[in-house]
Formats: sequence, structure tokens, C-alpha cells
Amino acid sequence: MTAPDIGSAEEQARYQRGLEVLSGIDGGGAPAVMDSLGDIAPALAHHIVAFGFGDLYSRPALAPRQRQLVTLGILATLGGCEPELEVHIKTSLNVGLTPAEIVEAFIHTAGYAGFPRAINAITVAKKVFAERNLLPVTEG
Amino acid sequence: MTAPDIGSAEEQARYQRGLEVLSGIDGGGAPAVMDSLGDIAPALAHHIVAFGFGDLYSRPALAPRQRQLVTLGILATLGGCEPELEVHIKTSLNVGLTPAEIVEAFIHTAGYAGFPRAINAITVAKKVFAERNLLPVTEG
Amino acid sequence: MTAPDIGSAEEQARYQRGLEVLSGIDGGGAPAVMDSLGDIAPALAHHIVAFGFGDLYSRPALAPRQRQLVTLGILATLGGCEPELEVHIKTSLNVGLTPAEIVEAFIHTAGYAGFPRAINAITVAKKVFAERNLLPVTEG
Amino acid sequence: MTAPDIGSAEEQARYQRGLEVLSGIDGGGAPAVMDSLGDIAPALAHHIVAFGFGDLYSRPALAPRQRQLVTLGILATLGGCEPELEVHIKTSLNVGLTPAEIVEAFIHTAGYAGFPRAINAITVAKKVFAERNLLPVTEG
Amino acid sequence: MTAPDIGSAEEQARYQRGLEVLSGIDGGGAPAVMDSLGDIAPALAHHIVAFGFGDLYSRPALAPRQRQLVTLGILATLGGCEPELEVHIKTSLNVGLTPAEIVEAFIHTAGYAGFPRAINAITVAKKVFAERNLLPVTEG
Amino acid sequence: MTAPDIGSAEEQARYQRGLEVLSGIDGGGAPAVMDSLGDIAPALAHHIVAFGFGDLYSRPALAPRQRQLVTLGILATLGGCEPELEVHIKTSLNVGLTPAEIVEAFIHTAGYAGFPRAINAITVAKKVFAERNLLPVTEG
Repeated sequence: MTAPDIGSAEEQARYQRGLEVLSGIDGGGAPAVMDSLGDIAPALAHHIVAFGFGDLYSRPALAPRQRQLVTLGILATLGGCEPELEVHIKTSLNVGLTPAEIVEAFIHTAGYAGFPRAINAITVAKKVFAERNLLPVTEG
Repeated sequence: MTAPDIGSAEEQARYQRGLEVLSGIDGGGAPAVMDSLGDIAPALAHHIVAFGFGDLYSRPALAPRQRQLVTLGILATLGGCEPELEVHIKTSLNVGLTPAEIVEAFIHTAGYAGFPRAINAITVAKKVFAERNLLPVTEG
Repeated sequence: MTAPDIGSAEEQARYQRGLEVLSGIDGGGAPAVMDSLGDIAPALAHHIVAFGFGDLYSRPALAPRQRQLVTLGILATLGGCEPELEVHIKTSLNVGLTPAEIVEAFIHTAGYAGFPRAINAITVAKKVFAERNLLPVTEG
Repeated sequence: MTAPDIGSAEEQARYQRGLEVLSGIDGGGAPAVMDSLGDIAPALAHHIVAFGFGDLYSRPALAPRQRQLVTLGILATLGGCEPELEVHIKTSLNVGLTPAEIVEAFIHTAGYAGFPRAINAITVAKKVFAERNLLPVTEG
Repeated sequence: MTAPDIGSAEEQARYQRGLEVLSGIDGGGAPAVMDSLGDIAPALAHHIVAFGFGDLYSRPALAPRQRQLVTLGILATLGGCEPELEVHIKTSLNVGLTPAEIVEAFIHTAGYAGFPRAINAITVAKKVFAERNLLPVTEG
Repeated sequence: MTAPDIGSAEEQARYQRGLEVLSGIDGGGAPAVMDSLGDIAPALAHHIVAFGFGDLYSRPALAPRQRQLVTLGILATLGGCEPELEVHIKTSLNVGLTPAEIVEAFIHTAGYAGFPRAINAITVAKKVFAERNLLPVTEG
């Protein structure tokens, strides 16, 4: 068994494809985490882009705003994903979810995963919204 | 401290309100779990309806289809929620999500919560779709 | 569907009820998290008080000290809930659990949820106890 | 490195000690799971008794009823622990928790770990209570 | 954004590559779950093979036996993954882990994720070992 | 019921045994967490050493490098265990796992527990490797 060469033409094409998907939703500029993986796990960075964005995010069955709603529910529930939540709250804004919709996804999480997970996710959202002058959030 | 009387007029009004929300999304007929709680934890059944549906689901910041997408992400990620997933896959169909959208939410979960959670959720969806003659699912 | 108006007389009465329960166990002064939610998710703050404390905590089937023991087990197991653990360790002291009982709940967690969750919870307890000059904890 | 010999006099004394603690709370008769481990992981069965019961459960800082409340919160939150929950619901009854207290611990879980975990735990309790003619549960 | 065509020559080559890796470790015969996904989420089955096996399992940094040890730790900890555990216990045997090593990985899990997760995983192992006449397991 | 006296000759012998196992794999110097538990939960520190290392780690069915691979999979999956991960990444290096093997265990986690858990664990590894001048990691 040998792993695919992530430098091969085929893999680079997959990577470029994923990068385009990623750039289309996060407003350009791959998340800093990708750079951070460069000297320790470049293959993981490759697969996040090629598989996560190129293979999964690109699927048309869910529009980007729908997909982000699923993502917000997943990450809030997992817990311990504050850095990823921050990235995906920004992406959610970029694809057109409103601050009220993002907050609502987390309030909704309270019923299924409990108040602590909901509060923790909203705490991350508050940081992002504060940086972008999106506070206070007007409901509805 | 005394708990609110779930038989009081105010609480019954809250309950009725939640029941209307629930009936509006699940096609009538409260989930069997509500009946099952009747002789062991009627207050929990009350609060699931009054708080979960009356207070949370009724909030207009997310449309029912959006809200179900968040729910599918949460329940698939939690794991061990097969009965609840079954209820919510049915509810998702009732509010207008297509089988392909439901499946896509679970495929998406693979990237953030791993393949096992995604497969388990799709196994529940397959059972529901088979009962309703919705197989095979045509993507896109 | 429209959500209940959290400013209505009925909801304000529910909120006041929850606030009294909360004040009775946390020594007055709502947790800072409530204030923090004010400009981003005031409805969540409302529901934490009205539902979490007014509807759940007020139920007489468990005395406050018993209820806190359940809470400590839940939060230690969930993981990633350090802020909530801090609030509830303080509340546990306020309702009369001893430092040794609080620590014991976390030691007990080791058997069912593993050493890391137990250690993490005790690390939070140590911070709270240090602030209140409750160290060292004498067992038994 | 060599593991301790679980057949040694010292380890057998630790085991006997744990077995006495276990018998004192579960009404005699080690859980069937212990027998089940006999031909595949006898050392695990030994450690569950010697460490779990002999070292942890025997600690006096929490009375058995208090300790079971912590346990119920932990197991309901973990999820996927239906067999263990069944054992511990029975143990909880044996040490004197009432059905209403056991149910209350699970209702309480809803606020911190969400409705699905609470419902799943109550479903197990309902099975145990039905077998023992303890239904319906009268609150308070 | 359009998803990659899983029927394209490139994707079929990726799939074949993954299938070879999978066949090399599971003794031939893709897990039944792959077939089961065929009429509901064929793309997920494709990605499990192409990404999971072709991209991840094929990486030479860990030998198959090492990789299975990591997998056993992950799946036992996740919980609620009994079907996946069964597949991977069989795969672990196929790549040369002994029953005692597999059981040991689960006993080890007890210290970090608690006794219930360990017991649940060993219960699945016992079923697999019984089918293959591998009981009793002789330690060491 | 009375707990075993952790100061007794038998328990001190168990503790010393565990400490030898621990010293053999972590390069001497018990983790700082042990000291930290001294004034709040000394019994937990005792049991981590006596049970976790003396009873579990000492078992010969898995060699230290194998055991660490299981541990890395467990801790990465649990989430919220950054301090424990740091300790165990160092221990993994001490028993002879290479940086590439450690990173690979975490990349592998992505398939079963999702990208966020994998990234979080690698972030901890990067910190440890940077302190020890082990960056960049050369794969395979």
C-alpha cells in the first residue's frame, strides 16, 4: 500500500477544485489552520481541501446556506471546537446567513444538546459579531 | 421552591401552543414517545411540547426546513439517538426537505463527526424512506 | 408560527419565578453569562432562567444538594463546559455541598467517563476553592 | 513491566473488598456483565470490582444515594450506555432512591445534555420500573 | 459548484485504489454497509472507499496493525458504533492483531473513557470471537 | 463501607509499582497534574498511578508503543483533553513512536471522528514538537 502522492497532477487538480469551493464560501483566504498544518501534517491540509471542500461541500444537494446550518448544528454539538466554530460562523456570514439565523441555530441546539453547548457556541459568535460590528443582534 | 403546575391554565395554554407548532411540522399525531412518557415523566412530555416546540421551534428566525437541517446535524452528531432521528427524518420530510437533502445533511456530517455517525444516521433514514417507498434516493 | 413574546406579562412572570429559584441557590446575582447573552441571544437567557430554573430546578423531587450532584456528574461528563462547571461548583457550595462532596463527585466520574474528564473538572474546582480559601480539601 | 497477578492474595483481598461493596448496594448478585467478561476479559471484571467498587464506591465522602445520583447524571449524559443504566437504575432503587428521584435526575439532564439523552434514560427506567410494578411514577 | 462525478475515470481509479487497500486488510468482501448505502447514498460509499481507504488507510506511516489499534481506541470511545466496531474487530484479526491485543485495547479504554465504553466494545468483540471460535481469550 | 487507606503499606506498594511503570514510559518526573491534585484530590492522584499505570499500563498484552497508539486515538476522539494529550504525546515520543507516527494517528482520527478532532490534536502535537525542535515532520 502506498498513499496517493499529494503532489501529483491528479491530486493537485483535486486540491485546486476544493480551494475554489472554499474560496467561494469563505471570501478568499484559506483559514489560518491550513497554513498551520503545513510543517506537521500537510496531507491533512490537502485532504481537508480536496475531500472536505472539493468532494463534500461542492455537492449541489444542499445550497451553501443550508449546508452551513447543518455545520453549525454539528460543531455546536461536538463541543471543544471553538476554532472551527469561529471559521464556520464567518463562512456562514459570507454565504448569506444573517446573524439572527446563526444565533438561532445555536439557541435551537439547546433543546437537543443542552444549554452549555448552546452558550459556548454563542460565545464564539459574539466574538465574531463584535469584531464585525454586528451587535446587537436583532431577532426575527 | 415549587414547580409550576403543568395542569394550570397558563401551562395548558403553553402546551396547546407547542402542540400546534408540533402538529404543524409532524403532520399531526404527536410522536409515540410523548405517550410513552405519560406514566413515568409527564412533566418531561409537557416541557418537550411547551418549551421545545412552543418556545424554540416556534421562533421565526429559522424556517422549518432550515431548522430541521440544524436538527439533523445535531442528532447525527450526538449519536445514540436513533429513535429521535427517526422522528426528525419524518418531520423533515413533512416540512418539505427532500430525501436527497436529508441524506446530504448526513453525508456532510462525515467530514465533521466522522463516517460512523454519518452511516448510522443514513441507516435510520433508509428505514424511514423504505417504509415510504422513497428509495432509491436520486441525488441532486 | 410565532414565538412567545418574552416581554409579555406571562413570560415575565415565568422569568421572575425562575430568577427567584436561581437567586435561592446561587446566592444572588445571576451568572455573568446571562448578561453576556443580552445583546446577542436575550431569548436564550430568558429560557435558561424561565425553563432551566423556573421549570426544572424548582421541581421538588430532588433537593438542591441532590440536584447539584446530578449536575456535577453531567457537566464533568460532557466536557468542554469549564465556564458552566465553575458556575455550578459555586452553586453547589451555596446550597451546602462540601468541597469534599464536590470533589468526590468528580473522582467518581473517573470510573464512568475516564480520568481526563475527572481531572479537568477537579482543575476547575481547584480554581474556585482557591479563590475561597477552601484548600486543602479534607476528605471524608 | 508485568501486570499484577489478579489471582494473588493481595488482589483477591481487593476483589473481595469490592465485592462486598457491590453486594451492599446492588442487593447481591453481581451484574450479569461480570460473568459475561469471564472468558474474554477477566482482568477487566476484576478491576471493575476491585477499583470501581472497592476503591471508588467505598469512599465515604458521598453516601450511596448521593453517589447514585452522580452516576445517573453521568450515564444519561454519556449515551449509548443502556445496559449500564439498567444496572444502575436497579442499584439506585436498592440504595433507597425513589422512582420519582431517579426520573427527576433524568428530567434534569434535559437542560444540560438535551431532551434525547433524557428520553433515552427514562425509556430504560420505564423498563425497569415496569418489571417491578413501580409504574405509574407519582412525582414529588 | 458541482461535485466530482464519482463515475468519472479519475474517481473510479481512486475508488479502485481504495478497494484494493480495503481488500488487503479485510480479507476481501467489502463490508455489507457499502452495499447498504447503494440505493441511498452511493457517494458516501464511494468516499469511504476512495478517501477513507484510498487516501487515509494507504498511508505508510502506520502499519495496518498499528492503524487498527488507533481505530479500536477511537471507535470504543465514540460509543454507539457497534456495527463499525464489529467490522473493525474483524479487520484487526485479519491484519494480525491477536484477540488478546484487541481486548487489551478496550481494557485500556476504561482508564480514559470509563468502564461502560470498555464493556460495550468488549461485548462486540465477544460476539465476533464466539463466531470464530476464539474464546476463551488467553491474556498475555 | 470504608475506602482503602491510600497510606497503607499495601496501597503504597501498589502506588510505587505504578510509579515505576509511569517513570519507565514518561522519562521520569510524574506529570505536573499529579502534583496539582495533591491538595484537592490526593486519592485520585493515587488511583491514576496505582490503577491507571500499575494495573492497566503494566499489562503486557500491548507493548508501550502499541498502547500509546490506542491512547492517542482515545484522547483525540474525546476532545477537550488538551492537557492529557500533551502528556501523552510526550510519552509517545519517549517510548519510541516517531513524530510521523503520532501525527498519523491523528490524521487517521479524521475519518472516524471528523476533521475538527484531528486538527485539535495536531495543534497540541505541534506545540510539543516545536518545543523539542522536531518540526517539520517528515512523513513516512
